[in-house]
Amino acid sequence: MLQVGVIGATGYAGSQLVALLVNHPLVEIAYLASHSYSGKRFSEIYPSLQGGCDLLLEEEDIEEASKRCSVLFLALPHGMASHKVTKEILERCIIIDLGADYRLSNSSVYESWYKSDHGSKDLLGEAVYGLCELHRDRIGTANLIANPGCYTTCSILTLAPLVAEKLVDPTSLIIDSASGVSGAGRSEKLGSLFCEVNESYKAYSVATHRHTPEIEQELSALNGADLVVQFTPHLVPMHRGILSTCYANLKEGVSEAEITSAYRKWYAGESFIRLMGSSLPETRYVKNTNMCAIGWKVDGRTNRVIAIGAIDNLVKGAAGQAVQNMNIRCNLGEESGLASTVASPL
Amino acid sequence: MLQVGVIGATGYAGSQLVALLVNHPLVEIAYLASHSYSGKRFSEIYPSLQGGCDLLLEEEDIEEASKRCSVLFLALPHGMASHKVTKEILERCIIIDLGADYRLSNSSVYESWYKSDHGSKDLLGEAVYGLCELHRDRIGTANLIANPGCYTTCSILTLAPLVAEKLVDPTSLIIDSASGVSGAGRSEKLGSLFCEVNESYKAYSVATHRHTPEIEQELSALNGADLVVQFTPHLVPMHRGILSTCYANLKEGVSEAEITSAYRKWYAGESFIRLMGSSLPETRYVKNTNMCAIGWKVDGRTNRVIAIGAIDNLVKGAAGQAVQNMNIRCNLGEESGLASTVASPL
Amino acid sequence: MLQVGVIGATGYAGSQLVALLVNHPLVEIAYLASHSYSGKRFSEIYPSLQGGCDLLLEEEDIEEASKRCSVLFLALPHGMASHKVTKEILERCIIIDLGADYRLSNSSVYESWYKSDHGSKDLLGEAVYGLCELHRDRIGTANLIANPGCYTTCSILTLAPLVAEKLVDPTSLIIDSASGVSGAGRSEKLGSLFCEVNESYKAYSVATHRHTPEIEQELSALNGADLVVQFTPHLVPMHRGILSTCYANLKEGVSEAEITSAYRKWYAGESFIRLMGSSLPETRYVKNTNMCAIGWKVDGRTNRVIAIGAIDNLVKGAAGQAVQNMNIRCNLGEESGLASTVASPL
Amino acid sequence: MLQVGVIGATGYAGSQLVALLVNHPLVEIAYLASHSYSGKRFSEIYPSLQGGCDLLLEEEDIEEASKRCSVLFLALPHGMASHKVTKEILERCIIIDLGADYRLSNSSVYESWYKSDHGSKDLLGEAVYGLCELHRDRIGTANLIANPGCYTTCSILTLAPLVAEKLVDPTSLIIDSASGVSGAGRSEKLGSLFCEVNESYKAYSVATHRHTPEIEQELSALNGADLVVQFTPHLVPMHRGILSTCYANLKEGVSEAEITSAYRKWYAGESFIRLMGSSLPETRYVKNTNMCAIGWKVDGRTNRVIAIGAIDNLVKGAAGQAVQNMNIRCNLGEESGLASTVASPL
Repeated sequence: MLQVGVIGATGYAGSQLVALLVNHPLVEIAYLASHSYSGKRFSEIYPSLQGGCDLLLEEEDIEEASKRCSVLFLALPHGMASHKVTKEILERCIIIDLGADYRLSNSSVYESWYKSDHGSKDLLGEAVYGLCELHRDRIGTANLIANPGCYTTCSILTLAPLVAEKLVDPTSLIIDSASGVSGAGRSEKLGSLFCEVNESYKAYSVATHRHTPEIEQELSALNGADLVVQFTPHLVPMHRGILSTCYANLKEGVSEAEITSAYRKWYAGESFIRLMGSSLPETRYVKNTNMCAIGWKVDGRTNRVIAIGAIDNLVKGAAGQAVQNMNIRCNLGEESGLASTVASPL
Repeated sequence: MLQVGVIGATGYAGSQLVALLVNHPLVEIAYLASHSYSGKRFSEIYPSLQGGCDLLLEEEDIEEASKRCSVLFLALPHGMASHKVTKEILERCIIIDLGADYRLSNSSVYESWYKSDHGSKDLLGEAVYGLCELHRDRIGTANLIANPGCYTTCSILTLAPLVAEKLVDPTSLIIDSASGVSGAGRSEKLGSLFCEVNESYKAYSVATHRHTPEIEQELSALNGADLVVQFTPHLVPMHRGILSTCYANLKEGVSEAEITSAYRKWYAGESFIRLMGSSLPETRYVKNTNMCAIGWKVDGRTNRVIAIGAIDNLVKGAAGQAVQNMNIRCNLGEESGLASTVASPL
Repeated sequence: MLQVGVIGATGYAGSQLVALLVNHPLVEIAYLASHSYSGKRFSEIYPSLQGGCDLLLEEEDIEEASKRCSVLFLALPHGMASHKVTKEILERCIIIDLGADYRLSNSSVYESWYKSDHGSKDLLGEAVYGLCELHRDRIGTANLIANPGCYTTCSILTLAPLVAEKLVDPTSLIIDSASGVSGAGRSEKLGSLFCEVNESYKAYSVATHRHTPEIEQELSALNGADLVVQFTPHLVPMHRGILSTCYANLKEGVSEAEITSAYRKWYAGESFIRLMGSSLPETRYVKNTNMCAIGWKVDGRTNRVIAIGAIDNLVKGAAGQAVQNMNIRCNLGEESGLASTVASPL
Repeated sequence: MLQVGVIGATGYAGSQLVALLVNHPLVEIAYLASHSYSGKRFSEIYPSLQGGCDLLLEEEDIEEASKRCSVLFLALPHGMASHKVTKEILERCIIIDLGADYRLSNSSVYESWYKSDHGSKDLLGEAVYGLCELHRDRIGTANLIANPGCYTTCSILTLAPLVAEKLVDPTSLIIDSASGVSGAGRSEKLGSLFCEVNESYKAYSVATHRHTPEIEQELSALNGADLVVQFTPHLVPMHRGILSTCYANLKEGVSEAEITSAYRKWYAGESFIRLMGSSLPETRYVKNTNMCAIGWKVDGRTNRVIAIGAIDNLVKGAAGQAVQNMNIRCNLGEESGLASTVASPL
């Protein structure tokens, strides 16, 4: 059994990760840390896991953790991981960071969007962007894997074939996304209170959301030239789920059939991509799963393609993809511990 | 007291209208019809109105109704009103139609989007599109007022100043909207069941939604030339509210200040428009009110403006605007019976 | 115009109160205090009230406030009001306290349930328990009115006729209640986060909830002898509303008709009680209104009556009843400013 | 692999059952019937199961089905199963009926609560009430297993130790329950529409709910004498979950410790019972699992015990318990295919 640990185990992404690891047939949890709840058992904080995970939560100590674990997941607020991870740690332990610190290869882009210094620029060269479907080979040998953001995963996977296959005008990309509330994390903020969120819908961080440069980094690489995207997140009164409605102007003469071919070609054989064609995804279709469902429609009137992707923000958008990265890196079988999550139709 | 009636009184838009009319100081409800519930009292169907409106629901009879009422509201599925309204009825009674039949001045556009014949093309010339802020003068003398759609109202009001003032490229308009579930009406459809809607988010009618030609008709007029828009509706698990996130490419050199000026100029003195600038609306800010709240942001990186409008789909998007139209037409004071709806902060 | 003020204006009860006062035809808000937001405008905190209430929020100063206002509402956490109110203040100003401090006439009962000292026991004799339907006469002359709790209002109104008319065994009373989340207030607590509340249902404070002694005080008085009740609150994932399902063993030979008569006799002429008989209330029937709806059923198999009451916890359970108390005390007409809240069927 | 089938596969209980069976390591689905959707693939109706279950839905034919399957699950509206099952079918196939037809051993009790004839009274003697924790032995040899109702499962499991151990007055039992909306099934009823359910809470079927006689049958048996219970269901705006808050008068001198002992004794070694003592369950703690969580509190003031049970109505309250019954009957290991559902903390 592979020994694994989670630092930041009681946030929403962290706890989803624990739940997945508990059910993973090839790993054993050897370490859980929580700053807020150290000294308590995980199942005191999440009674739904009583009997499933009754481990004691420890105060965070990455040195110690990296000795006990072969794989260590970090689920921390941005800016923290880059001050903790070191070359020495990476020599003995694979780090999968669910935060933002190692996602952007250019530290000045990081610093301009996150308004804070990066704590370990020297490690950026070692980090691999852990979007499994795009970087599987490099993930297979990386000791520092930057697990992508939730909006990011959904948006990039939805647009990648269109951009890479040069079917759309790369200056025209607009990504209109919406997320369930768990994306805001478990901190005690006014804006996350039930009565402030329920029965309402809003856009937020318009033109300034930090997932924007991640999307641009990856789509630019696929495009072979820098591009910018318009990205607008919205908040939906539900627990989980992200839907990205992506707009792009079609290049001259591109047909719906070519778009369909591009998706099929790109995602052939992928376990966690579900192509739905014109029957469009809803977030409930992927709830509690590691799946990204994608649909598309060409609008002949406007000469645009509208491509829509859906994921569960806590699974494919965070903990599930982290497990998928571990599976790839450690040769555990890419679906290991992830298939069983397709357990409920509602 | 003005005598008024509602045909289709027990649907969601109809019942919201009844609730507003009950509280309107200058009108008296003289007639309520409901095909599904004729013979019952309104308050048996909506117990929240017990003591407020205990009138008997009648089987629909527009001839009779138009004799008893000075203003008659129709809240019927599309395609029905155009087979009921006649020149004779319009001579004795003002019709405010909450359905789609008289909104599109070109009957062939209607027939191509609605896939059905129009029942009274000869009356289209008399109909005035009842978007109060744009057509107040013509509404003031019209006997057939076509109350706009919910998405339509929100989207047009949000984009009108930008288009009319030539601040944006009219070929670039993308409207990404989301609505609460009451927009789907009260019919017993699988897709409106709690368990099919709750905890999910989806796009629907992509590239084919029937509010598209309405938006195009009005924005084309403001543009002085035909334009097409990309319009995508989404469904949010909440009762009420529409938010339209509108994207447009800025014309060369247009600044945020010019955009702000355009909004201020267009909506100066409007009782039911709330300009929020960069502090962006949320649907809860307008819940249960006749207000349209609008905010905007310029994204210097992409050279686009993102303008966001919010309304309550059942009030400004249906029943409230219908009352506003009546108020204008009958000189009752435009805010009459509408101001008191600002009754709750949650 | 009566000059009024609110201390604690930005909590959920406080803000609901502000919204009601803004729409009240006979009062003018002269003072608003908020500890958290002093220096800001009310409408910055609640943008839905932009244009409705743009007053500046002040730091709390009850001396000053009681000079500017004829009626001062306190919407503070328990334990605060009793340290602020004085005899001098009560000589110049009517205090309506939405908190718990003056509800229990016996200070030792207060201290044993609230685990804290009472700050002004000498004033308890002047306080009148502001359950309007039961104490209208005494409210009419009181300068210190203790506005009842939300669960309390609903439970007492539902059980009062049964207890007072000696129709049920007073040792058998079980009150199973459920509330929307706004009852927990606007403080930033983990347990009020959307993701901790949504899609779940729980009992809480079983056998220990502080509304218990209030219910017992009032029902004991009606019973003419001390009684104890079993009270269990639950949390429902919705904004507003309380439903109390009350169980009582019928006294020998009591019929459903006698129960119906008792309700009719007790609540004849009450504007804010809606008797529904066996057609049972739902919380949506009273949402945004000051109404308490009550239904009942006799179960011949078990010889019990099940009586069910519903209120909006923020209106009849807090701010609305506070306005009703002011209306009674100041002869403004009991329904003044409250009727118009029946504005929406959904 | 055991060959199994489901008749009524596209309702909420049926589809949850299909999802569990798909993930069950020891069974293979050989037959799925749906009256509404025959001819379509299961995953067309539930896209979340695409790739998981793409079987064709057949028109119901129990003869054929019972030949193809070793175990056949019926998930039909009440009154249907009893007209389909025959002695011949039971000779070749184990029937697990998720409906009500075989739950009540006394057909006249069935007929008086369900107001309809029972179609196969001769088979009632063969039916075993499939509440696994109470009737494991008899289930192990039964060919006709009546899977219990949702409210029933939760209420009986919560009260069984108290009644069987004679700790409470059997004439005092009051069960106040609440359920998520999936309990109402997938039929297109007004009362199940999102806008009729969301943001509201109500009691229904007060004193008349059909799960009452089931609870009485089982608790009477444990009591050794007939008893009646007061059972009141409520509707909560959430997908899943049942919570039963049960009240009982303690027998003279019974202590909290004795109650705790009784629960421990009764449920020692049970995989799907989680005893929480005074830290009380919430429905989210058991969501998507086959667990029944139980907590209890003694109220010294009232001399009552309040015992609270929580289940997922679609899992332990329907499909999960059906699988558990199959596991017991077919020696598959009682937890087989059920453990993996503990997959998410939210």
